[in-house]
Amino acid sequence: MRILHTIPQEDGFRMPAEFEEHEGCILIFPHRRDSWQNGAYAARKAFKEVIDIISLSEKVTVCARYDDYDSARFLLGENVRVIEMESDDSWARDVAPTFVTNGSELRGIDWGFNAWGGLEDGLYFPWDKDNKMARKLCDLLDADTYHQRDFILEGGSIHTDGQGTILTTEACLLSAGRNPRMSKQEIEDHLKRCLGGEKVIWLPCGIYQDETNEHVDNICAFTSPGEVVLAWTEDKSDPQYAMSAACLSVLQQAKDARGRSFRVHLLPLPRPVTITAEECDGLDDMNGEPTRTPGERLAASYVNFYIANHHVVCPQFGDENDQTALQILQKLFPTRKVVGVYARDILIGGGNIHCITQQIPKIQSR
Amino acid sequence: MRILHTIPQEDGFRMPAEFEEHEGCILIFPHRRDSWQNGAYAARKAFKEVIDIISLSEKVTVCARYDDYDSARFLLGENVRVIEMESDDSWARDVAPTFVTNGSELRGIDWGFNAWGGLEDGLYFPWDKDNKMARKLCDLLDADTYHQRDFILEGGSIHTDGQGTILTTEACLLSAGRNPRMSKQEIEDHLKRCLGGEKVIWLPCGIYQDETNEHVDNICAFTSPGEVVLAWTEDKSDPQYAMSAACLSVLQQAKDARGRSFRVHLLPLPRPVTITAEECDGLDDMNGEPTRTPGERLAASYVNFYIANHHVVCPQFGDENDQTALQILQKLFPTRKVVGVYARDILIGGGNIHCITQQIPKIQSR
Repeated sequence: MRILHTIPQEDGFRMPAEFEEHEGCILIFPHRRDSWQNGAYAARKAFKEVIDIISLSEKVTVCARYDDYDSARFLLGENVRVIEMESDDSWARDVAPTFVTNGSELRGIDWGFNAWGGLEDGLYFPWDKDNKMARKLCDLLDADTYHQRDFILEGGSIHTDGQGTILTTEACLLSAGRNPRMSKQEIEDHLKRCLGGEKVIWLPCGIYQDETNEHVDNICAFTSPGEVVLAWTEDKSDPQYAMSAACLSVLQQAKDARGRSFRVHLLPLPRPVTITAEECDGLDDMNGEPTRTPGERLAASYVNFYIANHHVVCPQFGDENDQTALQILQKLFPTRKVVGVYARDILIGGGNIHCITQQIPKIQSR
Repeated sequence: MRILHTIPQEDGFRMPAEFEEHEGCILIFPHRRDSWQNGAYAARKAFKEVIDIISLSEKVTVCARYDDYDSARFLLGENVRVIEMESDDSWARDVAPTFVTNGSELRGIDWGFNAWGGLEDGLYFPWDKDNKMARKLCDLLDADTYHQRDFILEGGSIHTDGQGTILTTEACLLSAGRNPRMSKQEIEDHLKRCLGGEKVIWLPCGIYQDETNEHVDNICAFTSPGEVVLAWTEDKSDPQYAMSAACLSVLQQAKDARGRSFRVHLLPLPRPVTITAEECDGLDDMNGEPTRTPGERLAASYVNFYIANHHVVCPQFGDENDQTALQILQKLFPTRKVVGVYARDILIGGGNIHCITQQIPKIQSR
């Protein structure tokens, strides 16, 4: 593995869209007791359900800490590869490399990771194990790695259509805990150069109380070039209403890198999901303080799905909109089977199915 | 990865000879401070020299502990793959899988490992990290693994010609610290069934003071079917003389699995190599006791070479026989370049170049 200090776009590399073909998918076996209730017992079962579906059409690699290797190996299917790798938490989307390709070669971008905000408003300390994972995953895959550790970015804060358009949120990328010394324009230019893009669409915000500073992958996602889904509520008393409306307004006025207007498909949100006292009790403390508060609203959204080669894996919350979300997505992904996974036990950790996955694009020669 | 409880030979699998083509080679980045002087500083340099040569013709994967990943990545070449894996020590020959193949598929045997003798006469405690490596390496390589953890064996205690003949030593395989409840015949039968062999040649012993209970790979090795090198001294006052002579006697009377007599090439030993007080001082204690004693004789032998695809990497000791050993080996390996590496800093750990490597056989479909 070479550690590269050049720029992907200048090397002829770009980030493919998630709906392009994958070689495989990376996840991390959950373990953090202050993120996942009951020693991550239920989260592991939920991760396994997600993995079982993805592994039907993709080679899945799961990173397990030394202490968890045997448990992961025992729980997961024979077609899943479990490899040893230390981590602070389990969000492959945000700590695994963002993969780029020139069509015949795979490379990974090793962004800086500081637990969604570092000492400003990060979610845990320290985060050094997580920050080292992207390079190690490139090494594992024999992919050269772009050294971008001086630029703080999580994979969940960007989406691309693979045709030059990048989608992100101002709430996250302009947050004080990431790259405060860079202007919006500098960040935009850097994104384009790293991801091989020509246009950045800045949504103002994401999902209410999303503790990632409102990652785009929880509110809006490409389903094909020129088409997106947007998390939506009709309840004007919900703080989310104004947030989703503001995003819709941007999308309605925007054109993508190829000059197309967006077809925006509204994906209803579940009714607010709040954490119970019993669930809170199952979470270990963080530095002597409770991790979550009973009644706290979680950032539930159906947009947090993963597009596998043959499936779309979409979170379910036991809500009346569960089926509606699946039906809308099934129409938008006619060549894939849309499958729901009850994901409350992932949501308690703060993210969802998209957040725990990272796709490896398919390369012709590989 | 499937965990198999069947028997390789019955599944049509066999262990290829080391001189058959390799897909790659596995090593472990040294770290153990009571095995390697000065925090393994010099050992790492010596390992790197070995790796640099092997990686000219094989894909090298180096397992580094979490704490050592960055150091290993920095030290080793770009064409070397560094992966994270905890270990107790650094002898890939003995803790990595013994790979077997049916010609189109690779599988690994996960023998039990107890640090060369367990509580009887093992060299350190605990050894659980080492014992878990074989399975994890199979997982990494997407190779199914034969569960043989109930049978204690190190890869350094066996050699094969790939044509049904297995070479081992009684001193090691019949030791009290390995499989004391099995008879010699039972062990022989088990070896044949696991390695796909038809005949086991039992050498009585190995190299004097070899703390592995005298692994075969330090005294005798196949250079081609029907031909072996045997570590030899002409000094009749050396305890090694009688040991090598006893092995020679067995080899002269034996026939291999195909009915051939052996051509035995005597490979001179270096003069006795003893550890200095300064070297001992560089070793951390083990449980409050010195690890080695100044003047202690080390099990130096030129037989402990590694056969790479295009090279043979042979230890050198600054001895007058260094060149002779290379010349003898060069004649026996006419299609490979025989290269010496000054290996005193590996020898201090107790083994040598063959001990720190484990080849992955080449499979047609891979």
